Parts: sequence; C-alpha cells; structure tokens
Amino acid sequence: MNEMTGRAIEALLDVPSPYLIFLGDATETAFAKTAYGLRDWAPDRCVGECSITGAITLGLPILTPEAAVAAGAKAMVIGVANIGGVIRNSWLPMLIAGLEAGLDIVSGMHGRLGEEPVLRATAERLGRRLIDVRTPPRQLPVATGRKRTGKRLLTVGTDCALGKKYTALSLTNAFRARNVEADFRATGQTGILIAGSGIPIDAVVADFIAGAAELLSPDNAADHWDVVEGQGSLFHPSYAGVSLGLLHGSQPDVIVMCHAIGREQIMGLEDYRTPSIGEAIELNLALARRVNPAVRCAGIALNTSHVPPERAHEIESEIAIGLGLPVADPMRPGLRFDALVDACLADIA
Amino acid sequence: MNEMTGRAIEALLDVPSPYLIFLGDATETAFAKTAYGLRDWAPDRCVGECSITGAITLGLPILTPEAAVAAGAKAMVIGVANIGGVIRNSWLPMLIAGLEAGLDIVSGMHGRLGEEPVLRATAERLGRRLIDVRTPPRQLPVATGRKRTGKRLLTVGTDCALGKKYTALSLTNAFRARNVEADFRATGQTGILIAGSGIPIDAVVADFIAGAAELLSPDNAADHWDVVEGQGSLFHPSYAGVSLGLLHGSQPDVIVMCHAIGREQIMGLEDYRTPSIGEAIELNLALARRVNPAVRCAGIALNTSHVPPERAHEIESEIAIGLGLPVADPMRPGLRFDALVDACLADIA
Repeated sequence: MNEMTGRAIEALLDVPSPYLIFLGDATETAFAKTAYGLRDWAPDRCVGECSITGAITLGLPILTPEAAVAAGAKAMVIGVANIGGVIRNSWLPMLIAGLEAGLDIVSGMHGRLGEEPVLRATAERLGRRLIDVRTPPRQLPVATGRKRTGKRLLTVGTDCALGKKYTALSLTNAFRARNVEADFRATGQTGILIAGSGIPIDAVVADFIAGAAELLSPDNAADHWDVVEGQGSLFHPSYAGVSLGLLHGSQPDVIVMCHAIGREQIMGLEDYRTPSIGEAIELNLALARRVNPAVRCAGIALNTSHVPPERAHEIESEIAIGLGLPVADPMRPGLRFDALVDACLADIA
Repeated sequence: MNEMTGRAIEALLDVPSPYLIFLGDATETAFAKTAYGLRDWAPDRCVGECSITGAITLGLPILTPEAAVAAGAKAMVIGVANIGGVIRNSWLPMLIAGLEAGLDIVSGMHGRLGEEPVLRATAERLGRRLIDVRTPPRQLPVATGRKRTGKRLLTVGTDCALGKKYTALSLTNAFRARNVEADFRATGQTGILIAGSGIPIDAVVADFIAGAAELLSPDNAADHWDVVEGQGSLFHPSYAGVSLGLLHGSQPDVIVMCHAIGREQIMGLEDYRTPSIGEAIELNLALARRVNPAVRCAGIALNTSHVPPERAHEIESEIAIGLGLPVADPMRPGLRFDALVDACLADIA
C-alpha cells in the first residue's frame, strides 16, 4: 500500500505555476477558450499575458517573459488553440524567449512541444521542461475497487461538451464558500491547467482508466469532497468506455447530471439522439452502484447559454418538477444554484 | 469513408505466419498456455516447435529454425510466459538463431522484444521484425457509431478470464462447419496469434476503444458473421470501461454470456461478487441497444472445467430452465452446444 501511495504521488501530472499566458496570434475569442478558462477559474495562477502584436487580450497585465519571471511566473502556458492543434512557426520566438527567461512551456494542444526541434533543443540546453498536458503519466495502476475514505462527487452528462468541467468548478467554489473542504479533480487538459494537476483520462491506456480515476481522488478526510470533472457520456458511442471507467474509479457518493438545453443529437453523430435526463440519471446510478451502493443524484446542472434567461428559468422549473430534483445553471449564481449545492451536501445516508 | 477504409487496413496488427513455436525452458504446461492455444486452435499456422533442452513438448515436429524456414515458417512465436513476463537471457541464443535463419520474432509478453539490445541489434542488422502483439497499432480512429453491414456476435462475461476467447473460437468453427461464413476477431494477445491479426483492445488509448472495435469488424457481406472475442466484464471495476467500449464498437447482433461454474468473486477483487448470469445478460443487452436496438442474447457458454461432467450437465440444465436460454460448455461438443449454435444463427429479426 505504501508503494502504491508513493507511486500515486508521482503519477499525477503536475504543472508548475503561476503562469504567463501566451495568446499567440489569436484574433477570435473562440480560439482562446483555455486562456479565458484560466483567467476566470484560476486567477491566482495567472500573473499576466503575452502575445504577438494584434492578438486579443484577456485584460491581464501584459508582461514580457522576464517581467513575468520577476512577478513569480514558473511556466508559459499556450492558451490558444487552432485548427489542427499545432504549434505555429510565428509563435516560436516568444516560446523560446520564455525558455530563455526561465519559464517551462506548457501546452494542451494535440501537437507535442518536443516534436518542434528548436523548442526541444532550447529546453534541453537550458534545463527547462516542455509539458504536454494531454500526455498522461506513465505507470498508472489497475483499479482495485477498494472503498476510499472521504466524499466524492462526479459530474456526468447526457452528452460530451456541455458543461461538466465548469459545473465541477462552480460546485467546488460553492463548497469552499460554505467552508466545506473541497478539491476540483481534473480529467482533461483545460481542467488540469486550472487545477495545476490531474490526469487526462481519455489519453490513458484502456486497462488503466478506472485505475487513473482512483489515483486522482485518493483517501481523504471523512468530510472532504473531491469534485471530479466528468468526461464524455455513457450514451456517446465513441467515448462511453471512458465515462464508465471514470464512473467506477471515482466511486462517487453523489453525481450531478449535466445537460444542455436544445441538445437533441449526440455531438458529431447525427444518428444518435441524446437520452432523456431521467434515463441518463438512471443508467449512471445503476452502473455506479457497482462500486458504491449508496450513490445518489443530487440534481441537474443545465447549460442554458443558448436561451434567454426567462425561458431558461421556465425550463429549469419544468425539469425540476418532472424529476423531483434541483435544477440550476451553475454559471448563473442564485437561489436555484444554492439549492443544488444544498442537495449535493445533504447527508441523507 | 475511403480514407477511413484505407487506414483501417493498415491499422490492424498483422502477424506473419506460419509459426515455429518456441517453448523456452518451460517445464510446466501452465506457463505454455499460448503455445497450447496455438496448437489447438491454429494448427494450420504451426509448422513445428523448438525449445531449450528439457522443456515440455506440444507434440509438433521439433525443428531447427533453418528447418522451420524450409517448411515455410515466417515467424518464431514465443509460446511461453513466466512470472514478470520478461525475455530470459537463456532464450536469447535460440531467438537470435531464429532471426539469423530468416524468421521474424513475435511475442505476447509484457516485456518488449525491442528492449533487449542484442535482439534489437540483430533484427536491425538482418532487416527482420520484432513484433509485440500487446502493442496496438497507431492512428486508431474515434468510433462513429455508424451501422455496419454483416452480422456480429460478441462473447461477454460475468467476469474476466473464464472462456470468452475459446467460446468465440468454438462458435467460429461451428459456424464454418455449417457453411456459414465467419471470422474470429481477436482482441487479446493469444487471440491475435491464433487469428494472425487483431487489436489488443485493452492496450489502446481510452478514447479509441470503440473505434478500434469498429475497425476490427468492418462492413461485410450481409450473411457473414464476425465472432468477436470479448474482454473483461461490465461488472469488473478495473476493466468495465474496456468492456463497454468493445460492446459499443462491436455493435453485436448477438451476445453469448460466458460464466464459470463456481466463480463467485470477481477475479482479484475479494470485495466484489460476480453478478447473476441473468443480471449480466440484462445489463449487456441494455447497453448494447444503444448501438443496435435488435441485439439479443443467444445463450450461455458455461466453463465447466472444474466440475465432473455429470454435475456440469445438471448445472447446465438448471441454468437453461432458469433463464429459458440454451446453455453449453463450448469445450464439450454435443447436442447442447449444437443448440447454442442454432440459437446464435436463428434469424428472429
């Protein structure tokens, strides 16, 4: 067991912070979601931003790499994406300047930093690290299914990409605001940058999905909550295996079901309809009971970003009445979200 | 779609055959399961055996590597395992002799062949291949969920390691004996050696489990059967994600539930009981309906190797009455197995 714990600590991906956020040459906010996510959810980790002339700004202090280092920065994080997910040649001078100034470089893009020869050579020469947060740690364990101490919440969904990460982050913040000890546990690249550590669960070898999830939320104090970022959906024919492994390995006491208003088709698969929210709750609970018979659904996190607030409010009420559970958009603070938080923390055991 | 097909053909792991089977210094048959599996299930691929003095024998012609090449062999397959799964130093002279004679070397062990410097150097010098069948092909696709032509059967289980591979092999042979076109589709290392191709599904990156399974059983003639080797179990907290990805990607028309008499605990996890056979059928069908609403369970393959035949017969009858489905041990040919094959092929659509 001691060996296991020792390995566990090594096996989480750790990202040095605080960050200098690099915006590249992005002129559209849609390509800078990671940068905005960091600014909004990890302000303590962001000392400033830098970019190539003409790019968008986050409104953070604009710093040279040297100034960022003087302000305490440990890493330059590439906060933009592009089609293809590759490092552009025009970015290289700034990335190299970062390395020269003393920063590690961190990327969540598909293309690996080390595949860029000039970056690799510069990092090696200076003894800096190139960290790809899509690359999982090696030597993950196979899951044991052993019951762990502490409380766990997992955000699950009717589909991919509808708010599981931001729901988990909002709930973590709300728990802390009530003086409940809580940690956000990241399973995807943006989440890992926000949390400063985690495991990119969809990139691990299949045999180790549940084992990685166990590693991510180890034994903890009895009243401590790990709030685990969900991935995919049990109903998504491309990714359901990842979702099930994460569900089993997380051993949740509580799930929160995430859904986006108007999402009727599974993302990218026109032949597949999204399940009803009730059906999705039922299947997640049925499968989660295998590892925790006491698991319960605390409520529904509704992504209402595509409808006007008053209509969103109506739909939330309808769903709440239909399912008898609290419903709230975690991006809109208020009484409804408070009720969802109450339900998560309610000890009905 | 064409690009996809082109990539598909490349992405299956292909093993050159026929084989010369290497038995190392094994003195116990328990360490030579792969070798016996190949002798029994792929006799056409086995031209002979070789070993270090004093090892067990399969009863195949004992050949030097040179004689094996003269008899048509293309690869030397390591047919034994040991604790730790590593290549022993005492094996190296024979493996090198194989390379020198013109054979590729194939291994299903954990330790990679290429990590043995002398093997690597010899293979490079001679232009031979070192093939690790636990290493999945690169560039697997994400699953599309698209309905494919042809029929598919998947063996599933109440637990790991209770006969899913041999059930699939037995059914494939039985289908062919009835002049039904059928292919065994391998998802694990021994299966891949038997079939000569396949994908080690538990070694692929999590995001690509279902995609790999789709690749493994591509579009085919309407009356052709792919009989897919199952892996793990939806009820195994370590591996359920692999099992669900494989279930979704295989899109089975028929499942056959595998169970071992007397297996009451999940392998290696003393806190987990095996599910009832009925419960296991229900969950597999419920999840498989997501990709094929017409999926059905044809019957139960019962591993009776640990009970006397007359007792096995009684238990088979009890289960058959309980569930209203055919039950047979696929390793014991006879009327009961014939009835299971009938049920698989019955077109009740």
